[in-house]
Amino acid sequence: MLIFSAELIGTMIVIILGDGVVANVSLNKSGMKGAGSIQITLAWGFAVLLPAFIFGAASGAHFNPAITLALAIDGSIAWSLVPTYVAGQFAGAFIGAVMVYILFKGQFDATQDANTKLGVFATSPSVPNKGLNILSEAVGTFLLVFAIKGIGNIADLAPGVDKLLVFGTITSIGMSLGGLTGYAINPVRDLCPRIAHAILPIKGKRDSNWGYAWIPVVGPFIGAIAAVLVFSAIPW
Amino acid sequence: MLIFSAELIGTMIVIILGDGVVANVSLNKSGMKGAGSIQITLAWGFAVLLPAFIFGAASGAHFNPAITLALAIDGSIAWSLVPTYVAGQFAGAFIGAVMVYILFKGQFDATQDANTKLGVFATSPSVPNKGLNILSEAVGTFLLVFAIKGIGNIADLAPGVDKLLVFGTITSIGMSLGGLTGYAINPVRDLCPRIAHAILPIKGKRDSNWGYAWIPVVGPFIGAIAAVLVFSAIPW
Amino acid sequence: MLIFSAELIGTMIVIILGDGVVANVSLNKSGMKGAGSIQITLAWGFAVLLPAFIFGAASGAHFNPAITLALAIDGSIAWSLVPTYVAGQFAGAFIGAVMVYILFKGQFDATQDANTKLGVFATSPSVPNKGLNILSEAVGTFLLVFAIKGIGNIADLAPGVDKLLVFGTITSIGMSLGGLTGYAINPVRDLCPRIAHAILPIKGKRDSNWGYAWIPVVGPFIGAIAAVLVFSAIPW
Amino acid sequence: MLIFSAELIGTMIVIILGDGVVANVSLNKSGMKGAGSIQITLAWGFAVLLPAFIFGAASGAHFNPAITLALAIDGSIAWSLVPTYVAGQFAGAFIGAVMVYILFKGQFDATQDANTKLGVFATSPSVPNKGLNILSEAVGTFLLVFAIKGIGNIADLAPGVDKLLVFGTITSIGMSLGGLTGYAINPVRDLCPRIAHAILPIKGKRDSNWGYAWIPVVGPFIGAIAAVLVFSAIPW
Repeated sequence: MLIFSAELIGTMIVIILGDGVVANVSLNKSGMKGAGSIQITLAWGFAVLLPAFIFGAASGAHFNPAITLALAIDGSIAWSLVPTYVAGQFAGAFIGAVMVYILFKGQFDATQDANTKLGVFATSPSVPNKGLNILSEAVGTFLLVFAIKGIGNIADLAPGVDKLLVFGTITSIGMSLGGLTGYAINPVRDLCPRIAHAILPIKGKRDSNWGYAWIPVVGPFIGAIAAVLVFSAIPW
Repeated sequence: MLIFSAELIGTMIVIILGDGVVANVSLNKSGMKGAGSIQITLAWGFAVLLPAFIFGAASGAHFNPAITLALAIDGSIAWSLVPTYVAGQFAGAFIGAVMVYILFKGQFDATQDANTKLGVFATSPSVPNKGLNILSEAVGTFLLVFAIKGIGNIADLAPGVDKLLVFGTITSIGMSLGGLTGYAINPVRDLCPRIAHAILPIKGKRDSNWGYAWIPVVGPFIGAIAAVLVFSAIPW
Repeated sequence: MLIFSAELIGTMIVIILGDGVVANVSLNKSGMKGAGSIQITLAWGFAVLLPAFIFGAASGAHFNPAITLALAIDGSIAWSLVPTYVAGQFAGAFIGAVMVYILFKGQFDATQDANTKLGVFATSPSVPNKGLNILSEAVGTFLLVFAIKGIGNIADLAPGVDKLLVFGTITSIGMSLGGLTGYAINPVRDLCPRIAHAILPIKGKRDSNWGYAWIPVVGPFIGAIAAVLVFSAIPW
Repeated sequence: MLIFSAELIGTMIVIILGDGVVANVSLNKSGMKGAGSIQITLAWGFAVLLPAFIFGAASGAHFNPAITLALAIDGSIAWSLVPTYVAGQFAGAFIGAVMVYILFKGQFDATQDANTKLGVFATSPSVPNKGLNILSEAVGTFLLVFAIKGIGNIADLAPGVDKLLVFGTITSIGMSLGGLTGYAINPVRDLCPRIAHAILPIKGKRDSNWGYAWIPVVGPFIGAIAAVLVFSAIPW
């Protein structure tokens, strides 16, 4: 029950802050419109940092089914806990996306461009190409999970510094590879807000681009599994 | 007496640096005019970081009546100390705003736009809507207080790293939600500089927009109280 | 001798990186021209961070006669060491400025504007006003020295985290108040590069604006002394 | 074998993230095109931070033959290990550059300017001048190696904080001096991606500018050797 609530509230915070920054810098009438990718990538780093230090001890702060799966394969968590993790993540990401819509309702109403509105919720590729888009998401998630394993490997790491390294990891992936597919690197980060986009009564919205929806689900799982396999193959 | 002076000087520093960065990037003839929201949000994070590490041991470094109230409800501080905290915060925020006016007097005189001048002191909504504006301030403050409680929850946190997490928290809220209402998330941060704006002999100033003034007071109190209630409901 | 060489090399690094970033973002033909005040203020923070962690144990990493004087008044260092500190700082700042000229010689030659060239070496006020310019430098240095005293006050601070807080302090002052007078907040940071500007054979240079030169010397000393006096008046 | 695989994978990650950010902000159709030097310099800092904390214990996380050579001269590592280090670094940097090409293939195809495409892989001087370009690379690498030695000198440094200081060092050098020669400060960072540029079937590519290629190899070695000599000359 602690794991479920930690993952639910934590993932909700990730999405409020993460989808929030996209709304904050891209919707009309927002006071920070136009701030660009430096603010987006730093803020996504902070979006994970905050719940990571709040819920690190409670659930390990996954907030991401690809991480949960990888850590189960890896033996770091019991398989029996996976459904609890994923249920919390799924619910939290959906609720977070609804919260972003409510908070930015005035700004959504003031925005004409339907792609901009969808972009608050769901990622899309800058150059559509199924193979390369999956690869982009897989490489990003590989780096994320590989780094998480690496943080766990540092002997006597000063408590709290691990969270700062998580911030660095998320921000790094976004700054270096984010222009490819928007670095979902987390199945629920993309899928649940996309579902929210489909359901919510957003004025002048377009379709939710379901044809692309499977890529930021499959890519992260591939990358996360590859990361734990490579990590365990290294003769530490 | 230590608490009073720590909260007074600390809150004064928060406002000198926090209202300072808004003046620094928005007033005419400032050498950093136009730097935008990335500098504003990072600098507000630093504005709280500095006095937080200076006065953390002395008073707990609240600098914010919403935090003080929440920690009293929570049992973290005695109710009898609340007036001392709030008096220091109120005085410090007012003095800080006066200092910003004195420091930037040449730049205020060189600025025509009365909204820009008011914006150094007081927040305003990008889309006016009482309910959503209160919600924006409440959600921002919820995240702030929830994160502070979370930092306190980390076992054996390396001393000093907690301050870096406070920086991350403030910057995060600004970067992700700041375009809604300017993220006062602190009753004295908005009210006391607004009073200073009303009193100070600023050339060509507009009215101090008192119709909005209650929202960044009420919203933060709601969010802070909700945060300690939710935090204590989690089965840690 | 360790103190002298630590302060000399350390201050040289501060000026190479600090005056370096100004050259890097403002001179013609530099690959990073136009990056603006966010890069300047972050880089000045790093410019002090690097030598602070390298020489922290060796000399306390002052690199600033205003800090040295304040810590002597304060009893933190012996008065007899003050000349050694200041001599190292003075020499280091001068050599650092010469290094910046050599490194960026091609870019200096490609830059027409004489104020831009002087601006790499020396600060200037955005609105000239003797009283307010001194106040700006004094307030900035007050915050710097007050924060340094505050860092020293944190019980059991994790080694290394103090340096990160120094980065935050320098960056904060620049981001929030830097548009006033360019935040010298250090007598040798302004005076020694200004002397270098006067001596070096820079093509098409203007005069070194000696009329302003005393302000970023006097202001920092006033602020630093005020900071240790206020700090010791607080009933810790 | 651990050293070889750590240096190979680590250097590969450095180049994926480091050359990646240049591609991410400069190639056509990238979603983050135009973000500029603040994103580039922060992301290069993170590009080294990530593998540094993952592989710090395994190999010392050099990822740079200039560091390896300097630490061998210095006696910090055995000379017999140098070939293993350099082989891993060389292979990793080449593979990383190939990965960046594959990931950004759609964006490379959409970019006309051949200099922009070369710029993802290899550095170039903003003002060509053999002597000053070597000096720029030597000074940058001097600061890098001097800082690494300095980090190793801090007594009881909290584990993990050293990595944050490495991030600060890399970012600092880029922000302050990067506009001169693009701060290779690492022979394999420039040479191996340049070889990849020459070999890969990049549409509309120019020659790989081999006339400049020796400078970011020689300059870093000079700077790194100077750094350990100066460091050991200081009477710590």
